[in-house]
Amino acid sequence: MLNEKTIKSLTISNDKKIILLVIDGLGGLEKNGLTELEKANIPNMDALCKDSACGLLYPVDIGITPGSGPAHLSLFGYDPLKYNIGRGILEALGIDVNVGNNDIACRGNFVTIENGVITDRRAGRIPTEKNEELCTLLSSQIKEIDGVKISIYPGKEHRLVVIFSKENIHGYITDTDPQKTGVPPLHSTPITEESSFLAEVVNKFTKQVQEILKNEHPANGITLRGITPYPKIPSMEELFKLKSAAIATYPMYRGLAKLVGMTLLDAGNTIEDELNALKKHYNEYTFFYFHIKKTDSYGEDGDYDKKIHILEETDKIIPEIRKLNPDVFVITGDHSTPAVMKGHSFHPNPVIVYSHLMRKDSVDKFTEFACNQGTLGHMYSKDLMQLMLASALKLKKYGA
Amino acid sequence: MLNEKTIKSLTISNDKKIILLVIDGLGGLEKNGLTELEKANIPNMDALCKDSACGLLYPVDIGITPGSGPAHLSLFGYDPLKYNIGRGILEALGIDVNVGNNDIACRGNFVTIENGVITDRRAGRIPTEKNEELCTLLSSQIKEIDGVKISIYPGKEHRLVVIFSKENIHGYITDTDPQKTGVPPLHSTPITEESSFLAEVVNKFTKQVQEILKNEHPANGITLRGITPYPKIPSMEELFKLKSAAIATYPMYRGLAKLVGMTLLDAGNTIEDELNALKKHYNEYTFFYFHIKKTDSYGEDGDYDKKIHILEETDKIIPEIRKLNPDVFVITGDHSTPAVMKGHSFHPNPVIVYSHLMRKDSVDKFTEFACNQGTLGHMYSKDLMQLMLASALKLKKYGA
Repeated sequence: MLNEKTIKSLTISNDKKIILLVIDGLGGLEKNGLTELEKANIPNMDALCKDSACGLLYPVDIGITPGSGPAHLSLFGYDPLKYNIGRGILEALGIDVNVGNNDIACRGNFVTIENGVITDRRAGRIPTEKNEELCTLLSSQIKEIDGVKISIYPGKEHRLVVIFSKENIHGYITDTDPQKTGVPPLHSTPITEESSFLAEVVNKFTKQVQEILKNEHPANGITLRGITPYPKIPSMEELFKLKSAAIATYPMYRGLAKLVGMTLLDAGNTIEDELNALKKHYNEYTFFYFHIKKTDSYGEDGDYDKKIHILEETDKIIPEIRKLNPDVFVITGDHSTPAVMKGHSFHPNPVIVYSHLMRKDSVDKFTEFACNQGTLGHMYSKDLMQLMLASALKLKKYGA
Repeated sequence: MLNEKTIKSLTISNDKKIILLVIDGLGGLEKNGLTELEKANIPNMDALCKDSACGLLYPVDIGITPGSGPAHLSLFGYDPLKYNIGRGILEALGIDVNVGNNDIACRGNFVTIENGVITDRRAGRIPTEKNEELCTLLSSQIKEIDGVKISIYPGKEHRLVVIFSKENIHGYITDTDPQKTGVPPLHSTPITEESSFLAEVVNKFTKQVQEILKNEHPANGITLRGITPYPKIPSMEELFKLKSAAIATYPMYRGLAKLVGMTLLDAGNTIEDELNALKKHYNEYTFFYFHIKKTDSYGEDGDYDKKIHILEETDKIIPEIRKLNPDVFVITGDHSTPAVMKGHSFHPNPVIVYSHLMRKDSVDKFTEFACNQGTLGHMYSKDLMQLMLASALKLKKYGA
C-alpha cells in the first residue's frame, strides 16, 4: 500500500458508490473434505464471482491470526501494524461506550482483596446485576479526580470499563492488574513523562474504590489493564475522500467504524434490517461498510452447520444489493474463523471485487479453493482499499 | 513478515514438531522440455503434495539469485536483507572453523610479492599441502598481536581463513587485498572509529607474515578480504521459542544453523545417516532443519541426470519422515540451481507445507509448474517461518 501522504494526494471525490460486505470470520477449513463455503448453497455469490475478479486476502500477514481490530482496519485501508488499537478502547467500543479524542479507556476487573492482597482476580465472577449495582454506586461517589472526569461502565460478571476524560490528557501508563493473586493491586507508573499526571489519578482512583467498597464481599477492589488513549487515525474522508457509512449491529464493529470516521447508521438487529438501512441511506454516502457478524460467532462456537446457514442467509440479500447497482461491490471476510478450529485463524479470505472495470476471471464459485485461481491472486487486506477506489475511478494517476 | 519485536510477542512454546527439509538448489529449468523435478520419479513427494498446500517461494526477492547464506537465513525466518553474513564468516563456517561473538573472520590468499608489489594474487595456486605447511609455520610464529589472538586455517590451494579474537573487539575495517597485481597489499583502514585498533593489528599481521615467508616462493605474502565480525542474530529460541536442531553434513550449513542457535546433530555423511539422526533425536526438539546438499552440487556441475538421481534418493526417505508424524512437514529448496545454468539462479522454489491445518489444493505433483497452481501462491522464503509456526499453533492472535 502507498503511504498516507501519497494516497491522500491521489484520491478524488466522485459520486460513485462502493459497498464492502464483510462476512465476519468468512474463511473456513475442511470438515469431511469441505469448507463451510464449499458446503454452503450460495448461488448468488457464485453468480457474482462470474461477473467479478476474485482472489484471496491475507488479513495482516502470512501466518498471522488477527483480532477484529487489525482485521477490520486493514479492510478500511489502514496499516494494521501502524494502528494498533489498545485493548481498553476495544473493550469500551465492545460495550457501546462512546469514546473520543480526550478519553483514556481501561478494562477493569472487580477483585477480592484480603489483608491487602488480591485473593481472587475475578471476585468470584459476581453476577452481572451485582456488577451493575457496584458501578452505579461508584459512579455516584467518584465523578472526578483532580479535574479528570471518571466514567464507569459495567460489563459482564466481574468486568467493567473505566474512562478517564480530560482535554489533552496523556495516557501511556502501566496496568494496576498484577495478573496474579497474593499481591496488592499495582501502582500505575507513567510510560511517557507526560503521562505521570494520569498515573497519579489512576492510583488515587484505585484507593477511593477500595475505600467505597471496603464493606463489600467478594468484590471489594478493582484492577485496571489495557489502559490506552483513543488512537489518532486519519478519517476515511481525509485519506480517501469517501463519505462513509457503517451498517453493523454489534457495538465493537460500530466502534471500529467510528474510529475511522464513518457515520453509524441505524442497522437494527437482523440482516434484513441491515439491508433496509442500506436501501434507505443509499443516496447519502459513497462508501458502505456492511457487516455480517454471526458467521464468526458460529465459527467460534465450532458450529459448522449454523455458520453455513448464515452464509446462505447472507446469500439471499445479494440480488437486493445488486439491484442498487453499486459501482463497486466487494464481498470478503475480516479474518477466517474455521468451525473446526473454534476461533480466528491465519488463513486468507476469499474476496470478490465486482466492478465493470475489473478484469474477469474463470472463478464461478465463492470458495477458498476457487478464489485461489482468481485474477487478483494473493493480496493483503490493507491493499483492498486502493483497488476499490481505483475501480470507482476515485484515484488520480501517480506521476506523469 | 512481521518485525522481530512483534513476532517475538506472538510466539508461544508448545510440543508440536516442525520438520523443514531443504533440498539445496531444488528448483530447475527445462532441458529437452522437462525440469529436473519434472523428469524425476518422486512418487512420495507427489503423494505428499496431495495432502498439503503448495506454492512457490522467492528466496530473497524477485529476480535475485542468492548465495547460500541469505537463501538459508530466509528459510529460518530472518530477513536476508537485514542480516547480511560477511564473507569471512561464511568462509570460516565453510571449512568448519568454530567462530563466535568475539571473532573477526577474514578470507585470505597467499600471494606472490616481487619488489614490493603483488605479481600473482593466488601464488600460482600452490598445492593444498603446501598451504597447510605454510599455515602451520605461521601459526607457530604468530600467536597473538597486541593481545589479539590469531588463528590461521588452510583452505584449498592458495586460500586460507584468519580469525582475530579478542573480547569486545570492533571489526569494521577495509580489505588488504587490492584485487589487482602491480601494487602492494593495501593498508587496512577502520570503517568505524572503534575499529582502528583492529586495523593496526591486521597491518602488523600482514607485515609479520611477509617477514616469516620472505624466503618462500611463490607464496611469500598474504592478502585479506571480507573482514567481518560475527553477526549478532537473535536465536530461533529467542524469536520463535523453538528448540531447534540441524541435520546437515556440510560445514557451511552447520555453520549457518549455528548462527541462529540451532543444536548441531551428528548427521554422518549420507542421506541415510541424516534420517537416522532425525529418528534418534526426534523427541528432543521442536524444529528440525534437514539439509540435502548434493542436488545443488550436481546442479552446479551441470549434471542434470545426477541431480535427478539425488532427488529420487531423497524421495525414498519421505515415507520414513512421515512415519514420525510431524505436525508440520515442509519440503522446499534454499534457491534454484538449474543444471542447464550450472549455478544458483533467481527462480522461485516449489514448496510443500504439510499440516492438518493447511487448506488442501489440487496440486498432485512436486514440480515448479504444478506448485504454481497451489493455494500458497507466490511467497517470500522469509515468510515461510510464520506459516510453519501458525500451522503448529505456535502463534498467538495479533490484536484484539
